[in-house]
Amino acid sequence: MSGNSFGQLFRVTTFGESHGEALGVIIDGMPAGLTVNLDDLKKELLRRAPGQHAVHTSRKEDDVPEILSGVFEGKTLGTPITVIVRNTNQRSADYEPLKDSYRPGHADKTTMMKYGYRDHRGGGRASGRETLARVIGGYFAGLILPKASFYAYIEQVGQFKLSSKPADHSVSRGEINIPEKKMSDEVIAFLSECKTKGESAGGIVALSIQGSPTGLGEPVFDKLKADFAKAMLSLPACIGMSVGDGFELALKPGSEISKDSKNFAGMEGGISNGEEIVLKLAFKAPSTIGDKAKAGRHDPCILPRVVPVVEAMAKIVMADHYLRQAAYSSFLP
Amino acid sequence: MSGNSFGQLFRVTTFGESHGEALGVIIDGMPAGLTVNLDDLKKELLRRAPGQHAVHTSRKEDDVPEILSGVFEGKTLGTPITVIVRNTNQRSADYEPLKDSYRPGHADKTTMMKYGYRDHRGGGRASGRETLARVIGGYFAGLILPKASFYAYIEQVGQFKLSSKPADHSVSRGEINIPEKKMSDEVIAFLSECKTKGESAGGIVALSIQGSPTGLGEPVFDKLKADFAKAMLSLPACIGMSVGDGFELALKPGSEISKDSKNFAGMEGGISNGEEIVLKLAFKAPSTIGDKAKAGRHDPCILPRVVPVVEAMAKIVMADHYLRQAAYSSFLP
Amino acid sequence: MSGNSFGQLFRVTTFGESHGEALGVIIDGMPAGLTVNLDDLKKELLRRAPGQHAVHTSRKEDDVPEILSGVFEGKTLGTPITVIVRNTNQRSADYEPLKDSYRPGHADKTTMMKYGYRDHRGGGRASGRETLARVIGGYFAGLILPKASFYAYIEQVGQFKLSSKPADHSVSRGEINIPEKKMSDEVIAFLSECKTKGESAGGIVALSIQGSPTGLGEPVFDKLKADFAKAMLSLPACIGMSVGDGFELALKPGSEISKDSKNFAGMEGGISNGEEIVLKLAFKAPSTIGDKAKAGRHDPCILPRVVPVVEAMAKIVMADHYLRQAAYSSFLP
Amino acid sequence: MSGNSFGQLFRVTTFGESHGEALGVIIDGMPAGLTVNLDDLKKELLRRAPGQHAVHTSRKEDDVPEILSGVFEGKTLGTPITVIVRNTNQRSADYEPLKDSYRPGHADKTTMMKYGYRDHRGGGRASGRETLARVIGGYFAGLILPKASFYAYIEQVGQFKLSSKPADHSVSRGEINIPEKKMSDEVIAFLSECKTKGESAGGIVALSIQGSPTGLGEPVFDKLKADFAKAMLSLPACIGMSVGDGFELALKPGSEISKDSKNFAGMEGGISNGEEIVLKLAFKAPSTIGDKAKAGRHDPCILPRVVPVVEAMAKIVMADHYLRQAAYSSFLP
Repeated sequence: MSGNSFGQLFRVTTFGESHGEALGVIIDGMPAGLTVNLDDLKKELLRRAPGQHAVHTSRKEDDVPEILSGVFEGKTLGTPITVIVRNTNQRSADYEPLKDSYRPGHADKTTMMKYGYRDHRGGGRASGRETLARVIGGYFAGLILPKASFYAYIEQVGQFKLSSKPADHSVSRGEINIPEKKMSDEVIAFLSECKTKGESAGGIVALSIQGSPTGLGEPVFDKLKADFAKAMLSLPACIGMSVGDGFELALKPGSEISKDSKNFAGMEGGISNGEEIVLKLAFKAPSTIGDKAKAGRHDPCILPRVVPVVEAMAKIVMADHYLRQAAYSSFLP
Repeated sequence: MSGNSFGQLFRVTTFGESHGEALGVIIDGMPAGLTVNLDDLKKELLRRAPGQHAVHTSRKEDDVPEILSGVFEGKTLGTPITVIVRNTNQRSADYEPLKDSYRPGHADKTTMMKYGYRDHRGGGRASGRETLARVIGGYFAGLILPKASFYAYIEQVGQFKLSSKPADHSVSRGEINIPEKKMSDEVIAFLSECKTKGESAGGIVALSIQGSPTGLGEPVFDKLKADFAKAMLSLPACIGMSVGDGFELALKPGSEISKDSKNFAGMEGGISNGEEIVLKLAFKAPSTIGDKAKAGRHDPCILPRVVPVVEAMAKIVMADHYLRQAAYSSFLP
Repeated sequence: MSGNSFGQLFRVTTFGESHGEALGVIIDGMPAGLTVNLDDLKKELLRRAPGQHAVHTSRKEDDVPEILSGVFEGKTLGTPITVIVRNTNQRSADYEPLKDSYRPGHADKTTMMKYGYRDHRGGGRASGRETLARVIGGYFAGLILPKASFYAYIEQVGQFKLSSKPADHSVSRGEINIPEKKMSDEVIAFLSECKTKGESAGGIVALSIQGSPTGLGEPVFDKLKADFAKAMLSLPACIGMSVGDGFELALKPGSEISKDSKNFAGMEGGISNGEEIVLKLAFKAPSTIGDKAKAGRHDPCILPRVVPVVEAMAKIVMADHYLRQAAYSSFLP
Repeated sequence: MSGNSFGQLFRVTTFGESHGEALGVIIDGMPAGLTVNLDDLKKELLRRAPGQHAVHTSRKEDDVPEILSGVFEGKTLGTPITVIVRNTNQRSADYEPLKDSYRPGHADKTTMMKYGYRDHRGGGRASGRETLARVIGGYFAGLILPKASFYAYIEQVGQFKLSSKPADHSVSRGEINIPEKKMSDEVIAFLSECKTKGESAGGIVALSIQGSPTGLGEPVFDKLKADFAKAMLSLPACIGMSVGDGFELALKPGSEISKDSKNFAGMEGGISNGEEIVLKLAFKAPSTIGDKAKAGRHDPCILPRVVPVVEAMAKIVMADHYLRQAAYSSFLP
């Protein structure tokens, strides 16, 4: 019941159940006259798509985006942009046994508590599949912020950790969004093993934003960090967000923090200062384990596929704040 | 420019600069007929007030709440409740030297980037003083949730850490909201030393909610955890939130997580399941250090005073979702 | 740029240009478990469809609704309901000459002022065709209000006027939504003549709502009459709304008004009192006249087709306020 | 319960019951750096104040505005502006007999239906006194639109009608906002007689806006005319709004309407075209008649005092749409 929209001026509304006819998104508040490149959009969707790598779910989804409104002769009209993706590979039968069983850690039980009725064939709206609509939203948000660069990557999976932060946004993120060959190889091997054993893994994703405009975010409830937090914690398995190394930084004395402006991670008083913005995100291991997981139609680890979704959500947050700030630009001295 | 409201049905709007005439809050969406106890409200404000303990700022603020609307003969009217608190102890002169200097880690510089104009006498809206308005909002939110119990406490300050989680909500939180005598004494000594040296400290606050209604939160963007995240990261020095032990839990295998439903921390699919909700929050050390800090009108550590604010924000989030869910209760089978 | 949503808890978002791929609607905030009857929905769409009567545009639109989300096994899921209708009969070529000409009284010129870019093939979002999405929204809104009856009808076209108010909601509204045979025949003849001459006509639509719940509407900005006014004036050619006989009633002395509670038209202080709600709506004659109108693909008068749209908007307003009020029902004494 | 805010970017929230401690308003979304002239604000309040003319209520209200936040050294800070006005002349005893009687046409009965509890001493939030908060909001909205001129006036009271539209905005509106000496004198005499007899009167107010920016309003639900309609119908006794001469224009053939662009009243497709905007508003006679009215503490006709409120609401609508449009100005070709 409601809660399917995000943003105020740049407003993304997603719809569609994982096993319904189609998923999609409406983007309301898009400026007119911006050039839409369907290939770029498809590329973003492919980054999130399942079945792109052996460590992922074996489900193949042919996620073909169809633009229903808001674009005319390759340019945005300023009217709501609607993009849908048909569900073509639902195989509902696979899920039939789930009809009366609630998977722990999923929305199954709480959906019944809340609505008293559900589509038992899958996660419904709570499914990770919903995030493809966010990736579409993120593509359009990015058009509003041509100078900003968004770069997310896996920092840690289980006990495997990057040895250092990537030098810049041009560093290749390899096959599964880990920007270090050694760790990437190790994690691929580890996840293959997980898949065989019916085990699952979680970890930490980092996001770096460079070229952010200054002055984004509002001083009280709509701080930039607060809207990032809402955006990220709205992702299915996300169980934590920090500004920079938040939980470690919190333990350091003020004298040490103030030595380096990097510790503010691009935001002071909740408002962007133009420096690099850094967020860290914790994602838990998928709850589907054991025999069900072995069946192969689930990811043993969602982090590789969540990276483009994290970037999309960050773009949506910043596009919204960019427009909110732009409304006042003519009043600046 | 905007962003001073939180919530949809239960909607809190705060106003007032730290050195202006008054701070206050409007609570729109309050049910009618609920009994208001002004003493209880004052008690909550006192928990947040400065000058209550030697380790705090020496500023004394006589935070006297005045109810301007929405309450009649001791009961809520269902109309917007407005409560103001006059600023009586601003001593603006103390801040005069700050006119042209921007304190690092504060909103000073970014406020100028954003607005081109500011009240240099203090943090303005970004000041921690704004949070007293949230405490007032939280008091009224609590009236909507009589069966839920909110209990926040300090888990860690710098290197000092609780040895175990408090058994239940009846455990005394001592002088500075640390529910363990030994740690409390150590932290008091440590913070006194910080004060003398012009040093500051941060740490981790934990929040436990018991007796939560089920079905709160929406399955996509307005997940309960997402709205908690926005609420908490909107607090001035908050630089991280996790659901339960999010960043540690993220590193554990799925098989281990699924062993204990406590690992879901009261929410599945972003919706409350009625079990204990647990959040962890990282707060950084105040940026004011050195000679300015020694002057004594700043807290060396905000955690003791942030505890009631964390509870207030949680109450506001849950009251809002409670009403949102109640709108549909008549349709439940 | 934005503004494509209506409602707070029951929230309708429409999308699609008149000459784009498809039009559609997302309904967010629908309760779960309600039975959806696709035939009923199609019947409502047919009431609005062009080409149903000789006095209408000769354009035929095969408005086939496709439900993409939110309904499972014939029942609402509580998730966003998305319904699209493909555009099949655009004949863009007809509109090619309009590329550089702005039709007076249309949004052509103001769209360029606002966006600097437009789809010249038709009215885009400002087209009357957008209202089919509202009719779909209204169908679902009606499911929330099973006891309320909505009955709109034409009261006046040009100089032709009903001799009396229809006795009740069971009175047949004839071929073109005029509940009086004589006037209906006269108007049909008059509009046929208009069509031949390239002339157009406007008039007055009345709406009666019976069985309204009490207590709907909020006492200040969101008065029920205010939200009706916004809903109705958001219709393309609507240039006036009154509560009951507003403009005539305004000229009468208070002593006369207070004689009959019918003069309050079902709302006191902006809140429904359970009695019959009556609204009057002024629609202007279409701006397309002369040779363009003679070409036959425009309505000489939109009132016959606007009647179901008026009912739909009223249902949407009331469903939203119904849910808003329901959120507080458990607190009522 | 809720509904006390108006506007999206320029957002006005009013609070306060007619017989509570204070009334007031928060204006969120104000640009920074604009000069505030307290005398101008007081002048606007005085135009709305009771007791300014013999034909008004004999209640005198010393409406002294106090700015609590958002203004520093005479300039707006970009933070929420809060202004309160204390209630000093409530004389609640006058209303004691009303405790258990519901005045027809007032919100008394519907308030009980909705909330089950009320402040019987007056109209509460539904009181006309709430509109002083709107006048304050309108003053600040006006600062955003320095080039637009808002001019409302009484066009008709009962059977007394202006002989012609005032030539321009410089025409004096006389003692009671009637810009024609003859009609003004007649109405003053008529209303004095009403007062003596315990009778009341309604009528029509016209609003002219010159110098409107172009491109204000959104093409679908948030048409400029739709937001004007919501704003105006949210006024206590307003029972109708038309764009220009809506109800009369609706009866004219399209060929006649299209002869003069004035018939579009400054809006095409719901978006401002830069020409004069004209609205007409119907206000009903106050429901308080007979002996209660003779007691003298009620207005026999609210139109003279409603004129500045109508202007204020129009300014609020336009300031909001101005900022919404400004958010996109950098994308215009």
